[in-house]
Amino acid sequence: MEGILPGVNVPSAVHAQSQQATAEPVPSGAREVPSRTIPLPDTVSPQMRAVIGRPFNPNYNLAPQTPAEWKARVDKAALDVLAGLPQMREALGVTVRPTIIAGVKAFIITPRTIPSPNRNRVLLHLHGGVRVLNPGEAGTREAILMAGFGGFKVISVDYRMPPDFPFPAALDDAVTVYRELLKTTTAENIGIFGTSAGGSLTLTTMLRAKMEHLPMPGAIAAGTPTVDLTKTGDSLFTNAMVDNVLGTQDGFIRATALLYANGRDLKDPLLSPIYGDVHGFPPAILTSGTRDLYLSNAVRMHRKLRAAGVEAVLQVWEGQSHAQYISDITAPETKEYHDEVARFFDLHLGR
Amino acid sequence: MEGILPGVNVPSAVHAQSQQATAEPVPSGAREVPSRTIPLPDTVSPQMRAVIGRPFNPNYNLAPQTPAEWKARVDKAALDVLAGLPQMREALGVTVRPTIIAGVKAFIITPRTIPSPNRNRVLLHLHGGVRVLNPGEAGTREAILMAGFGGFKVISVDYRMPPDFPFPAALDDAVTVYRELLKTTTAENIGIFGTSAGGSLTLTTMLRAKMEHLPMPGAIAAGTPTVDLTKTGDSLFTNAMVDNVLGTQDGFIRATALLYANGRDLKDPLLSPIYGDVHGFPPAILTSGTRDLYLSNAVRMHRKLRAAGVEAVLQVWEGQSHAQYISDITAPETKEYHDEVARFFDLHLGR
Repeated sequence: MEGILPGVNVPSAVHAQSQQATAEPVPSGAREVPSRTIPLPDTVSPQMRAVIGRPFNPNYNLAPQTPAEWKARVDKAALDVLAGLPQMREALGVTVRPTIIAGVKAFIITPRTIPSPNRNRVLLHLHGGVRVLNPGEAGTREAILMAGFGGFKVISVDYRMPPDFPFPAALDDAVTVYRELLKTTTAENIGIFGTSAGGSLTLTTMLRAKMEHLPMPGAIAAGTPTVDLTKTGDSLFTNAMVDNVLGTQDGFIRATALLYANGRDLKDPLLSPIYGDVHGFPPAILTSGTRDLYLSNAVRMHRKLRAAGVEAVLQVWEGQSHAQYISDITAPETKEYHDEVARFFDLHLGR
Repeated sequence: MEGILPGVNVPSAVHAQSQQATAEPVPSGAREVPSRTIPLPDTVSPQMRAVIGRPFNPNYNLAPQTPAEWKARVDKAALDVLAGLPQMREALGVTVRPTIIAGVKAFIITPRTIPSPNRNRVLLHLHGGVRVLNPGEAGTREAILMAGFGGFKVISVDYRMPPDFPFPAALDDAVTVYRELLKTTTAENIGIFGTSAGGSLTLTTMLRAKMEHLPMPGAIAAGTPTVDLTKTGDSLFTNAMVDNVLGTQDGFIRATALLYANGRDLKDPLLSPIYGDVHGFPPAILTSGTRDLYLSNAVRMHRKLRAAGVEAVLQVWEGQSHAQYISDITAPETKEYHDEVARFFDLHLGR
C-alpha cells in the first residue's frame, strides 16, 4: 500500500529518499508510459467534442526552411483565417477598423454596444500564432471574440513579425502602442490580453513596461501563454501527441521560436517571461486545458505570480488542447471563457 | 497549417464540423497516443523530483476481496502512516488530542502558537484515503500539516468507514461534527478542508448542509477531490499510468468506490458531488497536479462552481501526481501549498 495513496508516505521514508536523491540522483526517474487510446471526453459540449476529436494536422512537425517558405506558410494560414472573419464579426456584431498608432499598425475593434462600466476602458490585444502567423487582419480573430462576448473596445496590435522582423520588433510594437494609449487612458482602465504567443507577449510587455517605468495596466489575461521557449515544462512531455493542435514542441513550434529569437538566448526573460521578475505585475488570469501541450507553462507562471504576491487566477478547461477555448465561436465553453475573462477585467479595471 | 494553431480555425469550417458531428457523430474521436518515456521534470524542487520519480506501487491495480482482506490492507497502511506522525508533529510543533464530538470520534490538532487572526477560527478536516484508509490517528496527517503550516486549530473527523460502515456513515459523521461546531463557533469562522476522498467529502458535506438548512462555512479547500466516482473525466485516460500514486482508476480505486457506495448509484450527488447543485457554496480553493489522474475532476468542479457564481480558485502543481503536494513535509511545494490555502482561509473566514 505504501506510496499509492495520500497520507501513506511517512516523512522518515521521504527524508531517506530525498537524501538518497541528493547523494546519488534517482537513476533517471523517467516514466515509461505505454501506448493507449484516449476516448473522446463526454464531459464537454458537443461543439467542443468535435474540436477535441479533430485529427492531428499532418504538418505539425514540419518547419519551413527559407524566408520564402515561411512567408508562403504564413500567407496560406492567413487566408484561411480571413475567410472566417466576416461571418464572425456579423455574428458578434463587431466592427473592425484599421489604424496606425504611433507608427504601429493596429485595428480598433468595437462591439455594437459597450456596457456603461466599460465606456472608459480599453483592452489591448496581442494576437497569437507562434510569433510568426496571423499578420494584418488575421490577427484580429481573438479581439473580435473579446469585443463581442465581453463588450469591450479592443485595440489589436498588428505587430511586426519574422522572418523580416524578429525579436524585439513585436515587443517594441506592443510597448509603443501601450505607451501611446497611456496618453489618453489611465493605466488602471487598460487591460492587456492574448493567447499563446499573445499571452507570452502580454507578459513580456509587462517586463518591458517595468524596465521603462511605465505604470502597470489594471489587469492582464494570458491564455495558455508560451512563457518558456526552451523545451522545459512537464506537459511538453506528458501531453506530447495528446494535444491535437500542437502535437509536439519539436517541429514547427521550435522552428518558430528560433526564428523569432534570431540567435538570442531562449531563456532571455523578454523571450521567455517565466525567467523574469514578475513582482509588481497587475492582477492576471491564466488559462489552459488538460490536454494542452503548454499546460505546465500556464501552471508554472501561475505559481510564479502567486509566489511574487500577484493576484493571479488560473482556469483549466476539461479535455482541451492548446487554445481550443477560442476554436469554435458556437461552443458554450468559448462564451464561458470570455465571460470569465470579462468578469476578471470588470473586477480589476478602473472605471 | 489549418487547425494546428489558434486563430486558424475559421468559424464556417467549425460550423460545418459541428453540424456534421450532430448529424453523424465523429467516428469516435479517440486518439491513439504512442508509448513514450516521460523524463523527470526539472521544474520542481529536488524533494518533489524525488516524489515524482518514485516507482509505481506494484499493487495499485489489486483489490481486496473480503472484509478481512480490506481490514488487513487498511491496518498495514495505517501502521506505515502512524510510524511517521511523531516526527512530523515534532517538526511542526503540533499536538494531537483525541476527543468525541456528539458521539463522533475526532482529533483536536493544535499548533504551538495560533496567530491572533486565527484565534476564533477553526478548521474542520476530513481525511483522505479513498473512503477506506486512514482510520484513527492515521487520518490526522494532513490536519497536522495544516495546523503547523497554517497556524490554525484543526478538528479532524475520524469518520466511520467501510467495510463495516459504508455510505452514508462518513457523511453523517462529518455533518454531525459540523453541526456541533456551529453551536460554539459562528459558521463564517469555520473552514472545511480535505484531500482526495476528503476533498470530495468536503463538497458532499456542503450538499448535505444545504439539505439540512445549516449555514455554509466561511470557506472550503478541496484538494484534488474525487468528485466523480464513475470513470468519467478526461484525465482518467490521459494521465492513466502517468500518475505514479494512483496508476489507473480501474483496480483498487474502483473497488473502494464500490465498497463505499454499497450498491448506491455512483452518480448520486452525495457520492459524486460533481452531479450536485453547488449554488450557494462558500468560497472554495481547489488543487490538483499536471500528472494527477483526477486533474479533470478538479477542473470540472472548478468550472461548475464558477458557473454557479461561487468564488472558486484553482491551483495546479507542476509535474505532480495525485495529492503529491502533501507527500513530503520538507518540499517547498508543500509549504507553498499550505501557505496558499491558509491565505485563502484568512481572506474568507470571519474573525
